[in-house]
Amino acid sequence: MTMPAGPVLALSGGVGGAKLCLGLSDCLPAGRLHIACNTGDDFQHLGLTICPDIDTVLYTLSGRSNVAQGWGLAGETWQVMEALQGLGGDTWFRLGDRDLATHLWRAGELARGATLSAVTAALAGRLGVSVRVYPMSDEAVRTRVRCDQGELAFQEYFVREQCRPQVEGFYFDGIGSALLQPDLAELCRDPALAGVIICPSNPFVSVDPILQLDNFWQTLRQSQVPVVAVAPIVAGQALKGPAAKMMAELGLPVTALGVAEHYAAGYPGLITTFVIDGSDAALSASIAALGMEVKVMPTIMRERADKQALAAACLELL
Amino acid sequence: MTMPAGPVLALSGGVGGAKLCLGLSDCLPAGRLHIACNTGDDFQHLGLTICPDIDTVLYTLSGRSNVAQGWGLAGETWQVMEALQGLGGDTWFRLGDRDLATHLWRAGELARGATLSAVTAALAGRLGVSVRVYPMSDEAVRTRVRCDQGELAFQEYFVREQCRPQVEGFYFDGIGSALLQPDLAELCRDPALAGVIICPSNPFVSVDPILQLDNFWQTLRQSQVPVVAVAPIVAGQALKGPAAKMMAELGLPVTALGVAEHYAAGYPGLITTFVIDGSDAALSASIAALGMEVKVMPTIMRERADKQALAAACLELL
Repeated sequence: MTMPAGPVLALSGGVGGAKLCLGLSDCLPAGRLHIACNTGDDFQHLGLTICPDIDTVLYTLSGRSNVAQGWGLAGETWQVMEALQGLGGDTWFRLGDRDLATHLWRAGELARGATLSAVTAALAGRLGVSVRVYPMSDEAVRTRVRCDQGELAFQEYFVREQCRPQVEGFYFDGIGSALLQPDLAELCRDPALAGVIICPSNPFVSVDPILQLDNFWQTLRQSQVPVVAVAPIVAGQALKGPAAKMMAELGLPVTALGVAEHYAAGYPGLITTFVIDGSDAALSASIAALGMEVKVMPTIMRERADKQALAAACLELL
Repeated sequence: MTMPAGPVLALSGGVGGAKLCLGLSDCLPAGRLHIACNTGDDFQHLGLTICPDIDTVLYTLSGRSNVAQGWGLAGETWQVMEALQGLGGDTWFRLGDRDLATHLWRAGELARGATLSAVTAALAGRLGVSVRVYPMSDEAVRTRVRCDQGELAFQEYFVREQCRPQVEGFYFDGIGSALLQPDLAELCRDPALAGVIICPSNPFVSVDPILQLDNFWQTLRQSQVPVVAVAPIVAGQALKGPAAKMMAELGLPVTALGVAEHYAAGYPGLITTFVIDGSDAALSASIAALGMEVKVMPTIMRERADKQALAAACLELL
């Protein structure tokens, strides 16, 4: 297996992205993997700044995530939520006691004036994660969902309304002025950067905010590094989350081809290789016609070995 | 027993004051008792606004306080603190899981733009407390302790340093611009106001901030209502907290007389009746010489009946 010599940058949302990140962290030597996390899902709740994608990545990389549940921490308890319910407070966003410690610690650091980057790096250290994990920006960007109920904050749509509203579009509040996280900007200028892997995260609400922020996608394209994207749609279904439902509601074909078309239209010339699952092999020619190399391989990551295998295959493409 | 017909206002800090407030609430008909709580002890911690005195009063009035421990909630659990410790976070201020639900709920409401008054009233309602409980102000006032270690925030002195530093003085940051809570200002203008009871709270860090805020003590004096103060020092000892230690360090006599002198010097003509414990009866003449009526009665509140008896006796003095 050939491994790239320089640093590798992964772009990730939550669960699906975190799985590939774990595989990448298993494959790459310490210090080589850098992860830019979507922060469009972040929100203010109960006075705290909640960063679901950053935390999912950190919890996954540190082996603390609740794999069965698909979110949060393993071995979690719920004393605070129970008491909050007793007070008639908002409990639709389930914050476990241990998870709350993370949010409180972060809130304390942010209140002292630390950047989200600094807080994220320190949290990674405290969780024993040596991978470099960055928020896409230190400035707030907040995904808003335009839907049949009007406009909702992303977590209102995703958690409170459980993705039931019919989606009409998205808007990333603050993206016009937010700057790319400084270490990420520097990484783009590093001639040793081996390449970028766009994890199988939601194209609309996880990957789009990262790529659109501060013209990041154009910076990446200009750096001419290989960009490998893994399709989050397999056999017409999202592996996790509302991506397939969103595509259907937006009138897009609910296939890996639909995802490739979305990326090709929004970020022309960016993606060099598009990875699809074996079950979608028939789409290869259509995707290739968009100007991307297509690689067909198993992309469903159930076991740790699946994550490592997909990660290794992606790294070989760089 | 004669009970005043109009509303009664109690000024309270934490534990000691809350005990008398509970007695007062047992004695007075619903809606008659108003409590102004010190907020000088409030502080920002882990991104939250913590209001120890308000919460102690509300927890005490709702029967939720941990009486044996002297602070916090009965039946508390500590999952979040344990996890925060695991992250290497600040755990010197012990926030139980159920208590945290209060702080999170408050933080959420404050973040939505609610005033501390509105949040306090709503929290009282949710805890089933019908007594009117107010923060002394909706603006932040923060007690700073000048001591041999320099200047400390009150909770740093009180909890983190466990009152070990030698006190040189106090400073109420923000008190120059903070306004009296509007309902309290209105209550002072109510001709039916029967009187004011200064609870046996710490004179320096619980009562002084309330009286000094927005010239509250002068407003009270001008309203010419009876003001009954209960000495928090009995037989040369503070019933609770660092009042006696502070008095010694400030060079004041550690007696009920010392407290009366402090009030007489700071708020001349304000206090009409000063209540001391039977064990301090010998101080009566000296205190009377300060221009206050002196009443001697048992002031130690161990059982609920003690609280009720002291409360009833104070109410009779109005």
